Amino acid sequence: MITLYDLEFANGARPSPFCWRAKFALKHKGLEWKEVPIGFTEKDKIAFSGQGLVPVIVDNANGDKTIHDSWEIALYLDKAYPDRPLLLKSAHAQAFARFMHYWTGLVVHAGMFPLIVGDMYAAVRPQDRDYFRESRGKRLGTEDFAKLQTEARAGRLAAFRQSLEPLRLQLKVGAFLAGDRPAYPDYIVASAFLWAGSVTSFKLLDGDDPILPWYARMRDLYDFGSRLKPAA
Amino acid sequence: MITLYDLEFANGARPSPFCWRAKFALKHKGLEWKEVPIGFTEKDKIAFSGQGLVPVIVDNANGDKTIHDSWEIALYLDKAYPDRPLLLKSAHAQAFARFMHYWTGLVVHAGMFPLIVGDMYAAVRPQDRDYFRESRGKRLGTEDFAKLQTEARAGRLAAFRQSLEPLRLQLKVGAFLAGDRPAYPDYIVASAFLWAGSVTSFKLLDGDDPILPWYARMRDLYDFGSRLKPAA
Repeated sequence: MITLYDLEFANGARPSPFCWRAKFALKHKGLEWKEVPIGFTEKDKIAFSGQGLVPVIVDNANGDKTIHDSWEIALYLDKAYPDRPLLLKSAHAQAFARFMHYWTGLVVHAGMFPLIVGDMYAAVRPQDRDYFRESRGKRLGTEDFAKLQTEARAGRLAAFRQSLEPLRLQLKVGAFLAGDRPAYPDYIVASAFLWAGSVTSFKLLDGDDPILPWYARMRDLYDFGSRLKPAA
Repeated sequence: MITLYDLEFANGARPSPFCWRAKFALKHKGLEWKEVPIGFTEKDKIAFSGQGLVPVIVDNANGDKTIHDSWEIALYLDKAYPDRPLLLKSAHAQAFARFMHYWTGLVVHAGMFPLIVGDMYAAVRPQDRDYFRESRGKRLGTEDFAKLQTEARAGRLAAFRQSLEPLRLQLKVGAFLAGDRPAYPDYIVASAFLWAGSVTSFKLLDGDDPILPWYARMRDLYDFGSRLKPAA
Protein backbone atom coordinates (compact mmCIF):
# COMPACT_ATOMS: atom_id res chain seq x y z
CA MET A 1 0.00 0.00 0.00
CA ILE A 2 1.14 3.53 -0.77
CA THR A 3 0.69 6.36 1.73
CA LEU A 4 0.24 9.89 0.39
CA TYR A 5 0.83 12.88 2.63
CA ASP A 6 -1.66 15.43 1.36
CA LEU A 7 -2.00 19.09 2.33
CA GLU A 8 -5.17 19.72 4.34
CA PHE A 9 -7.23 22.90 4.58
CA ALA A 10 -10.33 23.46 6.78
CA ASN A 11 -13.35 21.17 6.35
CA GLY A 12 -11.22 18.43 4.85
CA ALA A 13 -10.39 20.36 1.67
CA ARG A 14 -7.20 19.18 -0.08
CA PRO A 15 -6.28 21.90 -2.56
CA SER A 16 -2.54 21.38 -3.23
CA PRO A 17 -2.11 21.19 -7.03
CA PHE A 18 1.03 19.13 -6.62
CA CYS A 19 -0.85 16.64 -4.44
CA TRP A 20 -3.59 16.48 -7.09
CA ARG A 21 -0.88 15.57 -9.60
CA ALA A 22 0.24 12.73 -7.33
CA LYS A 23 -3.38 11.52 -7.01
CA PHE A 24 -3.79 11.61 -10.82
CA ALA A 25 -0.53 9.67 -11.17
CA LEU A 26 -1.61 7.00 -8.68
CA LYS A 27 -4.99 6.60 -10.39
CA HIS A 28 -3.35 6.43 -13.82
CA LYS A 29 -1.19 3.57 -12.55
CA GLY A 30 -4.22 1.88 -11.00
CA LEU A 31 -2.60 1.94 -7.56
CA GLU A 32 -4.46 2.15 -4.27
CA TRP A 33 -3.32 4.56 -1.60
CA LYS A 34 -4.26 5.89 1.79
CA GLU A 35 -3.96 9.55 2.61
CA VAL A 36 -2.48 11.23 5.64
CA PRO A 37 -3.71 14.81 5.83
CA ILE A 38 -1.11 17.34 6.93
CA GLY A 39 -1.55 21.01 7.72
CA PHE A 40 0.89 23.77 6.78
CA THR A 41 2.18 23.80 10.39
CA GLU A 42 2.60 20.03 10.69
CA LYS A 43 5.79 19.62 8.72
CA ASP A 44 7.07 17.34 11.49
CA LYS A 45 4.77 14.66 10.01
CA ILE A 46 6.97 14.51 6.90
CA ALA A 47 10.31 15.29 8.53
CA PHE A 48 11.31 11.67 7.75
CA SER A 49 11.36 12.63 4.06
CA GLY A 50 14.25 15.01 4.70
CA GLN A 51 12.35 18.10 3.55
CA GLY A 52 9.15 20.02 4.23
CA LEU A 53 6.96 19.95 1.11
CA VAL A 54 4.08 17.74 0.03
CA PRO A 55 3.33 15.54 -1.78
CA VAL A 56 5.34 12.79 -0.11
CA ILE A 57 4.60 9.13 -0.77
CA VAL A 58 5.79 6.08 1.14
CA ASP A 59 5.54 2.78 -0.73
CA ASN A 60 5.58 -0.07 1.77
CA ALA A 61 5.51 -2.62 -1.06
CA ASN A 62 9.01 -1.39 -1.82
CA GLY A 63 10.80 -1.27 1.53
CA ASP A 64 9.04 1.89 2.71
CA LYS A 65 10.56 3.75 -0.21
CA THR A 66 9.96 7.48 0.36
CA ILE A 67 9.61 9.97 -2.50
CA HIS A 68 8.78 13.66 -2.46
CA ASP A 69 7.98 16.08 -5.30
CA SER A 70 5.17 15.28 -7.73
CA TRP A 71 7.53 14.96 -10.71
CA GLU A 72 9.80 12.54 -8.85
CA ILE A 73 6.72 10.59 -7.78
CA ALA A 74 5.63 10.19 -11.42
CA LEU A 75 9.11 9.02 -12.43
CA TYR A 76 9.23 6.64 -9.45
CA LEU A 77 5.83 5.09 -10.17
CA ASP A 78 6.80 4.37 -13.79
CA LYS A 79 10.07 2.80 -12.64
CA ALA A 80 8.59 0.77 -9.76
CA TYR A 81 5.48 -0.29 -11.69
CA PRO A 82 6.60 -0.56 -15.33
CA ASP A 83 3.85 -3.05 -16.23
CA ARG A 84 1.09 -0.60 -15.36
CA PRO A 85 0.14 2.23 -17.76
CA LEU A 86 3.13 4.52 -18.09
CA LEU A 87 2.85 8.18 -17.13
CA LEU A 88 5.84 9.28 -19.21
CA LYS A 89 6.17 6.89 -22.13
CA SER A 90 9.07 8.38 -24.06
CA ALA A 91 11.66 11.14 -24.07
CA HIS A 92 9.20 13.31 -26.00
CA ALA A 93 6.33 12.56 -23.59
CA GLN A 94 8.61 13.50 -20.70
CA ALA A 95 9.81 16.68 -22.43
CA PHE A 96 6.23 17.74 -23.19
CA ALA A 97 5.18 17.10 -19.58
CA ARG A 98 8.16 19.05 -18.31
CA PHE A 99 7.38 22.04 -20.50
CA MET A 100 3.76 21.94 -19.33
CA HIS A 101 5.04 21.83 -15.75
CA TYR A 102 7.04 25.02 -16.26
CA TRP A 103 4.33 26.75 -18.28
CA THR A 104 1.67 25.83 -15.72
CA GLY A 105 3.78 27.12 -12.84
CA LEU A 106 4.75 30.37 -14.53
CA VAL A 107 1.50 31.14 -16.33
CA VAL A 108 -1.43 29.20 -14.87
CA HIS A 109 -0.53 29.04 -11.16
CA ALA A 110 1.00 32.50 -11.13
CA GLY A 111 -1.98 34.01 -12.93
CA MET A 112 -4.56 32.12 -10.92
CA PHE A 113 -3.18 32.70 -7.43
CA PRO A 114 -4.11 36.39 -6.99
CA LEU A 115 -7.58 35.59 -8.35
CA ILE A 116 -8.29 33.02 -5.63
CA VAL A 117 -5.97 33.93 -2.77
CA GLY A 118 -8.69 35.57 -0.65
CA ASP A 119 -10.91 32.50 -0.83
CA MET A 120 -7.89 30.30 -0.29
CA TYR A 121 -6.92 32.17 2.86
CA ALA A 122 -10.48 31.84 4.11
CA ALA A 123 -10.27 28.07 3.57
CA VAL A 124 -7.01 27.52 5.47
CA ARG A 125 -7.27 25.67 8.81
CA PRO A 126 -7.47 28.21 11.65
CA GLN A 127 -4.22 26.99 13.18
CA ASP A 128 -2.42 27.48 9.83
CA ARG A 129 -3.62 31.03 9.14
CA ASP A 130 -0.53 32.77 10.50
CA TYR A 131 1.76 30.52 8.47
CA PHE A 132 -0.21 31.11 5.26
CA ARG A 133 -0.52 34.85 5.82
CA GLU A 134 3.18 35.33 6.46
CA SER A 135 4.56 32.98 3.79
CA ARG A 136 2.13 33.99 1.02
CA GLY A 137 2.19 37.62 2.12
CA LYS A 138 5.92 37.70 1.52
CA ARG A 139 5.48 36.15 -1.93
CA LEU A 140 2.63 38.48 -2.95
CA GLY A 141 3.88 41.66 -1.33
CA THR A 142 0.69 42.14 0.71
CA GLU A 143 -1.17 40.33 3.46
CA ASP A 144 -4.53 41.84 2.51
CA PHE A 145 -5.52 38.86 0.40
CA ALA A 146 -9.19 39.80 0.14
CA LYS A 147 -8.29 43.17 -1.36
CA LEU A 148 -5.71 41.66 -3.68
CA GLN A 149 -8.28 39.14 -4.89
CA THR A 150 -10.91 41.80 -5.50
CA GLU A 151 -8.43 43.91 -7.45
CA ALA A 152 -7.17 40.91 -9.43
CA ARG A 153 -10.70 39.85 -10.37
CA ALA A 154 -11.45 43.38 -11.54
CA GLY A 155 -8.16 44.00 -13.32
CA ARG A 156 -6.38 40.80 -14.25
CA LEU A 157 -9.06 38.25 -15.14
CA ALA A 158 -9.08 39.02 -18.87
CA ALA A 159 -5.28 38.73 -19.11
CA PHE A 160 -5.37 35.44 -17.20
CA ARG A 161 -7.97 34.02 -19.55
CA GLN A 162 -5.99 35.24 -22.56
CA SER A 163 -2.82 33.60 -21.24
CA LEU A 164 -4.55 30.21 -21.51
CA GLU A 165 -4.92 30.52 -25.29
CA PRO A 166 -2.23 27.91 -26.12
CA LEU A 167 -4.25 25.41 -24.06
CA ARG A 168 -7.44 26.35 -25.87
CA LEU A 169 -5.82 25.88 -29.30
CA GLN A 170 -4.30 22.56 -28.25
CA LEU A 171 -7.74 21.30 -27.18
CA LYS A 172 -9.21 22.15 -30.57
CA VAL A 173 -7.38 19.19 -32.07
CA GLY A 174 -7.74 16.44 -29.48
CA ALA A 175 -9.95 15.59 -26.53
CA PHE A 176 -6.85 15.74 -24.32
CA LEU A 177 -3.60 17.69 -24.46
CA ALA A 178 -1.55 14.82 -25.89
CA GLY A 179 -4.26 13.35 -28.12
CA ASP A 180 -7.23 11.12 -27.49
CA ARG A 181 -6.22 9.84 -24.06
CA PRO A 182 -5.49 11.68 -20.82
CA ALA A 183 -1.78 11.94 -20.07
CA TYR A 184 0.52 13.63 -17.61
CA PRO A 185 0.29 17.09 -19.29
CA ASP A 186 -3.48 16.96 -18.67
CA TYR A 187 -2.89 16.00 -15.04
CA ILE A 188 -0.56 18.97 -14.55
CA VAL A 189 -2.97 21.57 -15.90
CA ALA A 190 -6.14 20.01 -14.48
CA SER A 191 -4.52 20.00 -11.03
CA ALA A 192 -4.29 23.79 -11.20
CA PHE A 193 -8.06 24.01 -11.73
CA LEU A 194 -8.69 21.46 -8.97
CA TRP A 195 -6.54 23.65 -6.70
CA ALA A 196 -8.90 26.55 -7.35
CA GLY A 197 -12.01 24.36 -7.28
CA SER A 198 -11.08 23.06 -3.82
CA VAL A 199 -11.43 26.48 -2.26
CA THR A 200 -13.63 28.68 -4.43
CA SER A 201 -16.63 28.60 -6.70
CA PHE A 202 -15.41 31.73 -8.52
CA LYS A 203 -15.67 31.32 -12.30
CA LEU A 204 -12.10 31.54 -13.55
CA LEU A 205 -13.32 30.86 -17.10
CA ASP A 206 -16.11 32.18 -19.28
CA GLY A 207 -19.09 29.85 -19.42
CA ASP A 208 -18.43 29.06 -23.09
CA ASP A 209 -14.69 28.60 -22.74
CA PRO A 210 -13.64 25.43 -24.63
CA ILE A 211 -11.34 24.62 -21.71
CA LEU A 212 -14.40 23.85 -19.56
CA PRO A 213 -15.53 20.62 -21.27
CA TRP A 214 -11.96 19.32 -21.06
CA TYR A 215 -11.79 20.24 -17.37
CA ALA A 216 -15.09 18.47 -16.77
CA ARG A 217 -13.63 15.33 -18.38
CA MET A 218 -10.53 15.59 -16.21
CA ARG A 219 -12.55 16.21 -13.05
CA ASP A 220 -14.79 13.22 -13.76
CA LEU A 221 -12.07 10.86 -14.98
CA TYR A 222 -11.34 9.56 -11.47
CA ASP A 223 -14.29 11.23 -9.78
CA PHE A 224 -12.11 13.93 -8.23
CA GLY A 225 -15.03 16.32 -8.56
CA SER A 226 -16.67 14.59 -5.60
CA ARG A 227 -13.74 15.71 -3.47
CA LEU A 228 -14.19 19.39 -4.28
CA LYS A 229 -16.03 21.48 -1.76
CA PRO A 230 -17.55 24.88 -2.05
CA ALA A 231 -15.43 27.57 -0.42
CA ALA A 232 -15.60 27.43 3.38
CA MET B 1 14.05 17.46 -56.02
CA ILE B 2 11.91 19.59 -53.77
CA THR B 3 11.22 23.24 -54.52
CA LEU B 4 10.65 25.62 -51.61
CA TYR B 5 8.96 28.96 -52.16
CA ASP B 6 10.61 31.22 -49.60
CA LEU B 7 9.69 34.78 -48.63
CA GLU B 8 12.31 37.27 -49.81
CA PHE B 9 13.23 40.62 -48.31
CA ALA B 10 15.79 43.12 -49.68
CA ASN B 11 19.41 42.02 -50.17
CA GLY B 12 18.40 38.38 -50.37
CA ALA B 13 17.26 38.13 -46.73
CA ARG B 14 14.76 35.31 -46.08
CA PRO B 15 13.24 36.03 -42.66
CA SER B 16 9.94 34.09 -42.64
CA PRO B 17 9.91 31.97 -39.47
CA PHE B 18 7.56 29.48 -41.10
CA CYS B 19 9.93 29.12 -44.05
CA TRP B 20 12.80 28.58 -41.58
CA ARG B 21 10.75 25.75 -40.07
CA ALA B 22 10.40 24.19 -43.51
CA LYS B 23 14.18 24.49 -44.06
CA PHE B 24 14.86 22.85 -40.68
CA ALA B 25 12.42 20.08 -41.58
CA LEU B 26 14.07 19.44 -44.96
CA LYS B 27 17.54 19.36 -43.37
CA HIS B 28 16.33 17.03 -40.61
CA LYS B 29 15.08 14.64 -43.28
CA GLY B 30 18.35 14.96 -45.20
CA LEU B 31 16.52 16.18 -48.30
CA GLU B 32 17.94 18.54 -50.91
CA TRP B 33 15.88 21.43 -52.16
CA LYS B 34 16.05 24.46 -54.39
CA GLU B 35 14.56 27.75 -53.36
CA VAL B 36 12.35 30.12 -55.29
CA PRO B 37 12.37 33.52 -53.63
CA ILE B 38 9.01 35.29 -53.56
CA GLY B 39 8.20 38.80 -52.43
CA PHE B 40 5.10 39.84 -50.51
CA THR B 41 3.57 41.19 -53.73
CA GLU B 42 4.35 38.14 -55.86
CA LYS B 43 1.63 35.85 -54.61
CA ASP B 44 0.92 34.92 -58.24
CA LYS B 45 4.06 32.74 -58.05
CA ILE B 46 2.29 30.41 -55.61
CA ALA B 47 -1.25 30.78 -56.94
CA PHE B 48 -0.98 27.14 -58.11
CA SER B 49 -1.02 26.12 -54.41
CA GLY B 50 -4.55 27.47 -54.07
CA GLN B 51 -3.66 30.02 -51.39
CA GLY B 52 -1.30 32.91 -50.79
CA LEU B 53 1.05 32.05 -47.93
CA VAL B 54 4.57 30.63 -47.82
CA PRO B 55 6.13 28.18 -47.25
CA VAL B 56 4.96 26.12 -50.19
CA ILE B 57 6.86 23.05 -51.34
CA VAL B 58 6.55 21.12 -54.57
CA ASP B 59 7.99 17.60 -54.52
CA ASN B 60 8.66 16.49 -58.09
CA ALA B 61 9.76 13.05 -56.87
CA ASN B 62 6.12 12.58 -55.88
CA GLY B 63 4.12 13.75 -58.91
CA ASP B 64 4.69 17.45 -58.25
CA LYS B 65 2.91 17.06 -54.93
CA THR B 66 2.24 20.56 -53.56
CA ILE B 67 2.04 21.31 -49.84
CA HIS B 68 1.64 24.60 -48.02
CA ASP B 69 1.85 25.45 -44.31
CA SER B 70 4.97 24.50 -42.33
CA TRP B 71 3.09 22.06 -40.10
CA GLU B 72 1.55 20.27 -43.08
CA ILE B 73 4.99 20.17 -44.70
CA ALA B 74 6.46 18.42 -41.63
CA LEU B 75 3.62 15.88 -41.64
CA TYR B 76 4.02 15.36 -45.40
CA LEU B 77 7.76 14.81 -45.21
CA ASP B 78 7.38 12.16 -42.50
CA LYS B 79 4.71 10.41 -44.54
CA ALA B 80 6.49 10.63 -47.90
CA TYR B 81 9.93 9.80 -46.48
CA PRO B 82 9.27 7.47 -43.52
CA ASP B 83 12.73 5.86 -43.71
CA ARG B 84 14.49 9.15 -43.05
CA PRO B 85 14.71 10.59 -39.52
CA LEU B 86 11.18 11.37 -38.35
CA LEU B 87 10.20 14.90 -37.40
CA LEU B 88 7.21 13.84 -35.32
CA LYS B 89 7.89 10.36 -33.97
CA SER B 90 4.85 9.72 -31.81
CA ALA B 91 1.54 11.14 -30.68
CA HIS B 92 3.34 12.75 -27.74
CA ALA B 93 6.07 14.22 -29.95
CA GLN B 94 3.39 15.67 -32.20
CA ALA B 95 1.39 17.04 -29.26
CA PHE B 96 4.49 18.66 -27.79
CA ALA B 97 5.39 20.22 -31.14
CA ARG B 98 1.84 21.47 -31.55
CA PHE B 99 1.81 23.11 -28.13
CA MET B 100 5.18 24.74 -28.89
CA HIS B 101 3.69 25.98 -32.18
CA TYR B 102 0.82 27.70 -30.35
CA TRP B 103 3.02 28.98 -27.53
CA THR B 104 5.60 30.32 -29.98
CA GLY B 105 2.97 32.10 -32.03
CA LEU B 106 1.16 33.63 -29.08
CA VAL B 107 4.14 34.42 -26.85
CA VAL B 108 7.39 34.46 -28.82
CA HIS B 109 6.29 35.85 -32.20
CA ALA B 110 3.73 38.22 -30.69
CA GLY B 111 6.23 39.50 -28.11
CA MET B 112 9.08 39.77 -30.57
CA PHE B 113 7.30 41.50 -33.45
CA PRO B 114 6.97 45.01 -31.96
CA LEU B 115 10.63 44.79 -30.86
CA ILE B 116 11.89 44.24 -34.42
CA VAL B 117 9.17 45.64 -36.67
CA GLY B 118 11.04 48.85 -37.47
CA ASP B 119 14.12 46.98 -38.63
CA MET B 120 11.91 44.49 -40.42
CA TYR B 121 10.14 47.24 -42.34
CA ALA B 122 13.50 48.70 -43.30
CA ALA B 123 14.55 45.30 -44.66
CA VAL B 124 11.48 44.75 -46.86
CA ARG B 125 12.03 44.94 -50.64
CA PRO B 126 11.17 48.45 -51.87
CA GLN B 127 8.36 47.17 -54.07
CA ASP B 128 6.80 45.37 -51.06
CA ARG B 129 6.87 48.31 -48.64
CA ASP B 130 3.29 49.41 -49.23
CA TYR B 131 2.00 45.87 -48.75
CA PHE B 132 3.94 45.42 -45.53
CA ARG B 133 3.00 48.83 -44.17
CA GLU B 134 -0.70 48.36 -44.79
CA SER B 135 -1.04 44.71 -43.72
CA ARG B 136 1.17 44.96 -40.62
CA GLY B 137 -0.12 48.42 -39.79
CA LYS B 138 -3.61 47.02 -39.58
CA ARG B 139 -2.42 44.23 -37.29
CA LEU B 140 -0.39 46.52 -35.03
CA GLY B 141 -2.72 49.52 -35.00
CA THR B 142 -0.02 51.91 -36.28
CA GLU B 143 2.09 52.36 -39.39
CA ASP B 144 4.85 54.20 -37.53
CA PHE B 145 6.91 51.06 -37.08
CA ALA B 146 10.10 52.87 -36.06
CA LYS B 147 8.31 54.59 -33.20
CA LEU B 148 6.54 51.40 -32.14
CA GLN B 149 9.87 49.57 -32.10
CA THR B 150 11.56 52.29 -30.05
CA GLU B 151 8.72 52.26 -27.52
CA ALA B 152 8.65 48.47 -27.37
CA ARG B 153 12.39 48.25 -26.77
CA ALA B 154 12.08 50.81 -23.98
CA GLY B 155 8.94 49.40 -22.40
CA ARG B 156 8.35 45.79 -23.32
CA LEU B 157 11.73 44.12 -23.55
CA ALA B 158 11.83 42.94 -19.92
CA ALA B 159 8.36 41.39 -20.18
CA PHE B 160 9.33 39.66 -23.43
CA ARG B 161 12.44 38.19 -21.86
CA GLN B 162 10.43 37.10 -18.81
CA SER B 163 7.85 35.40 -21.03
CA LEU B 164 10.57 33.06 -22.29
CA GLU B 165 11.14 31.61 -18.81
CA PRO B 166 9.51 28.21 -19.59
CA LEU B 167 12.04 27.82 -22.42
CA ARG B 168 14.91 28.70 -20.11
CA LEU B 169 13.81 26.15 -17.50
CA GLN B 170 13.35 23.47 -20.16
CA LEU B 171 16.90 24.06 -21.40
CA LYS B 172 18.31 23.57 -17.91
CA VAL B 173 17.65 19.85 -18.21
CA GLY B 174 18.64 18.98 -21.78
CA ALA B 175 20.74 20.43 -24.56
CA PHE B 176 17.58 20.64 -26.68
CA LEU B 177 13.91 21.12 -25.88
CA ALA B 178 12.99 17.44 -26.19
CA GLY B 179 16.22 16.04 -24.73
CA ASP B 180 19.68 15.45 -26.12
CA ARG B 181 18.82 15.75 -29.81
CA PRO B 182 17.29 18.59 -31.78
CA ALA B 183 13.64 18.00 -32.64
CA TYR B 184 10.72 19.84 -34.15
CA PRO B 185 9.98 21.92 -31.00
CA ASP B 186 13.53 23.31 -31.28
CA TYR B 187 12.97 24.10 -34.95
CA ILE B 188 9.80 26.01 -34.14
CA VAL B 189 11.36 28.24 -31.50
CA ALA B 190 14.73 28.66 -33.22
CA SER B 191 12.90 29.81 -36.36
CA ALA B 192 11.51 32.75 -34.39
CA PHE B 193 15.03 33.86 -33.51
CA LEU B 194 16.20 33.32 -37.10
CA TRP B 195 13.29 35.53 -38.19
CA ALA B 196 14.66 38.33 -36.02
CA GLY B 197 18.28 37.56 -36.88
CA SER B 198 17.50 37.88 -40.59
CA VAL B 199 16.64 41.55 -40.28
CA THR B 200 18.18 42.99 -37.12
CA SER B 201 21.25 42.76 -34.92
CA PHE B 202 19.25 44.04 -31.93
CA LYS B 203 19.95 41.96 -28.82
CA LEU B 204 16.62 40.40 -27.92
CA LEU B 205 18.27 38.51 -25.07
CA ASP B 206 20.67 39.41 -22.30
CA GLY B 207 24.25 38.39 -23.05
CA ASP B 208 24.19 35.76 -20.29
CA ASP B 209 20.76 34.37 -21.14
CA PRO B 210 20.94 30.53 -21.12
CA ILE B 211 18.77 30.56 -24.24
CA LEU B 212 21.73 31.94 -26.23
CA PRO B 213 23.98 28.84 -26.22
CA TRP B 214 20.99 26.75 -27.34
CA TYR B 215 20.23 29.24 -30.11
CA ALA B 216 23.86 29.14 -31.21
CA ARG B 217 23.62 25.33 -31.47
CA MET B 218 20.41 25.61 -33.49
CA ARG B 219 21.86 28.29 -35.78
CA ASP B 220 24.99 26.22 -36.41
CA LEU B 221 23.26 22.84 -36.73
CA TYR B 222 22.70 23.25 -40.47
CA ASP B 223 24.82 26.37 -40.88
CA PHE B 224 21.77 28.63 -41.12
CA GLY B 225 23.82 31.36 -39.41
CA SER B 226 25.66 31.90 -42.68
CA ARG B 227 22.35 32.93 -44.26
CA LEU B 228 21.66 35.67 -41.71
CA LYS B 229 22.51 39.20 -42.71
CA PRO B 230 22.87 42.33 -40.68
CA ALA B 231 19.89 44.62 -40.99
CA ALA B 232 19.74 46.40 -44.32
